[in-house]
Amino acid sequence: MDNFTQSPDPAQAATEIGRFLIDVDMFPVFFMAHFCIACLMIREDSKDLGPKFQQNHPMASWVSSVLTSLAGVIVTNFLFGDAVVDIIKEDRLIIFVTVIWYLMNYGPFDLLYKVVRMPPVYIVMAMLQENLRVRCIFQALEQVGKAYPGAIFIVLLAGVVNGNGYGYLKIVERLIRGKWTPGSNDFLEVTYLTKSSVYASVAFMLQASRFLLISVEITYLTVVVLFMIFRLLMTVTPNKDPLLPLEMPICKI
Amino acid sequence: MDNFTQSPDPAQAATEIGRFLIDVDMFPVFFMAHFCIACLMIREDSKDLGPKFQQNHPMASWVSSVLTSLAGVIVTNFLFGDAVVDIIKEDRLIIFVTVIWYLMNYGPFDLLYKVVRMPPVYIVMAMLQENLRVRCIFQALEQVGKAYPGAIFIVLLAGVVNGNGYGYLKIVERLIRGKWTPGSNDFLEVTYLTKSSVYASVAFMLQASRFLLISVEITYLTVVVLFMIFRLLMTVTPNKDPLLPLEMPICKI
Amino acid sequence: MDNFTQSPDPAQAATEIGRFLIDVDMFPVFFMAHFCIACLMIREDSKDLGPKFQQNHPMASWVSSVLTSLAGVIVTNFLFGDAVVDIIKEDRLIIFVTVIWYLMNYGPFDLLYKVVRMPPVYIVMAMLQENLRVRCIFQALEQVGKAYPGAIFIVLLAGVVNGNGYGYLKIVERLIRGKWTPGSNDFLEVTYLTKSSVYASVAFMLQASRFLLISVEITYLTVVVLFMIFRLLMTVTPNKDPLLPLEMPICKI
Repeated sequence: MDNFTQSPDPAQAATEIGRFLIDVDMFPVFFMAHFCIACLMIREDSKDLGPKFQQNHPMASWVSSVLTSLAGVIVTNFLFGDAVVDIIKEDRLIIFVTVIWYLMNYGPFDLLYKVVRMPPVYIVMAMLQENLRVRCIFQALEQVGKAYPGAIFIVLLAGVVNGNGYGYLKIVERLIRGKWTPGSNDFLEVTYLTKSSVYASVAFMLQASRFLLISVEITYLTVVVLFMIFRLLMTVTPNKDPLLPLEMPICKI
Repeated sequence: MDNFTQSPDPAQAATEIGRFLIDVDMFPVFFMAHFCIACLMIREDSKDLGPKFQQNHPMASWVSSVLTSLAGVIVTNFLFGDAVVDIIKEDRLIIFVTVIWYLMNYGPFDLLYKVVRMPPVYIVMAMLQENLRVRCIFQALEQVGKAYPGAIFIVLLAGVVNGNGYGYLKIVERLIRGKWTPGSNDFLEVTYLTKSSVYASVAFMLQASRFLLISVEITYLTVVVLFMIFRLLMTVTPNKDPLLPLEMPICKI
Repeated sequence: MDNFTQSPDPAQAATEIGRFLIDVDMFPVFFMAHFCIACLMIREDSKDLGPKFQQNHPMASWVSSVLTSLAGVIVTNFLFGDAVVDIIKEDRLIIFVTVIWYLMNYGPFDLLYKVVRMPPVYIVMAMLQENLRVRCIFQALEQVGKAYPGAIFIVLLAGVVNGNGYGYLKIVERLIRGKWTPGSNDFLEVTYLTKSSVYASVAFMLQASRFLLISVEITYLTVVVLFMIFRLLMTVTPNKDPLLPLEMPICKI
């Protein structure tokens, strides 16, 4: 009995953790982390547009922050013929983004901005964000897999767009802030975010079609752990693509 | 009796005028005014693209004029997942725009162009256009309010897009004419057209949810009168945002 | 009897050829020709983006090639409110494009690239492509004509977009390759591809509404033959618009 409580079966424990991660409600903790990082990114990316961009152009700053926060859903809705605005009917999410956007840009003493930029806080939030990213990919594959059974390219596309929606919306989002960068996009320079989304989608698809003889919980947990490790590497080192050393011997996309 | 016919109840008279404005058919008079102003604007905005732009690029001029004339519906259809071309099935409207576009750009002696540019004619047309704008906002709120009951952000968005559709289509419309202006858009510089659409939408939403204890007719009439006064101010003075003095003491968007 | 077998009724023969062209399966021969020319065009158009663009940016090259190959369907889906990705569920087509794209850009000894550039091969492929173009226009008119009966502008638009889809997607497709050309588009400079699509659509619409008292087979055959003649002229001469001499006396669009 003592033995049982102290060291349970690791495979069973992993399955339980994986099941927990699949089921846990993303709202509000994981969403908060994601929204904070998205709003922070917009503020940082607007610095070359003049000082106090957010004071002079609050509307553009808000629209950009909302688009960035919800990029995956918006690009998916666009590509799959749903109303682009469908996500906005979730008043709760919009109000939540708006509150975070407000505190991040105009909060007293710039408190939230300074806190989120502190490395330990940022790293925890980034870890939570990776969880949300895996969840988005996982759910997109499930939904699109039902709507288009057997169409592997379309299912793969759904996974990629949900794992890196902002990458494909960035050019429009920047245009809203008056920043036009036609010479770079996530097709020309395939980022880590795109590639990791592809690999995760392929793993989930192989598992679902029973090529991978492991449970969905273990697959999910493995993807989350790998995403978190790579994100940690990207945050603490200047390396922007931790997959590159692994891909180098095979090919360059 | 004499008294009754000479001075009827002003509240009742206002209600009747409001009801008339809600019900009157916008086709053809109000649409004509709107289309004339839209085609005039495209012609004026093309002057820096070389002399006789409309002679050298009739196709681009026509597509731009049609897009501008129908901007509200097109942006709404795009955002709400309807076919972007749905409005074009209204052959009557397209032929009507085309006739006005033709007369405005290639008419004998440039007659229509010169007439519409005459201040008194332009002002009357602008007043009619404001009526159409209020109607578009009002109808959009009704329709979207039914489709997404309780989703206030989405209803508000529908109102804004219908009140200032061109503001959000401008960047694409100009691109069709080979004019690329990435540094300015209606998010960066929030125009009077956007703000007035927001205020009108909020007023209609408050009235519909019975926060405003006045009839829909009076609300509609008030919005129309205010829109017409502000438009008049914008036309006869160089002031491009008559709301600014009213907003100054509170905040700047 | 001898006479009958040697010289059959030419009208009947033409009808049979027209019927054959309407019914013949476009997959795989005609599609192959179209995809080869599309991939060739992307490779040629990328030459000014630096040497070995396809080696350095395979993802952008692939996305561009797929978009170009399927441009007509994608633009149609966008305009008519269908899911933009619907065409991608045709795994067969995507794999087929991908194989051709691979061989065209990275094939051994650049064989396919060199073969397709040989004038006789290119001309045969261009002739096959014109067949596919007529088929796309014809089918689009049929489908949209059923969905929007009597709406001539919308039917005409469907014909044009299917006959020259790439013309309207080009600006986005080039942006994916990091090439931004805001000063030119198919509205500003109305190309032969647009105009021929308009004329063919009008011919098919007149035939369908019985203004043209000839059979659908003869109409189809005539359009195909004319498209092939004009394409031949465009390929072997530097003339980019063989319709211009015919239009000159009437007007310039």
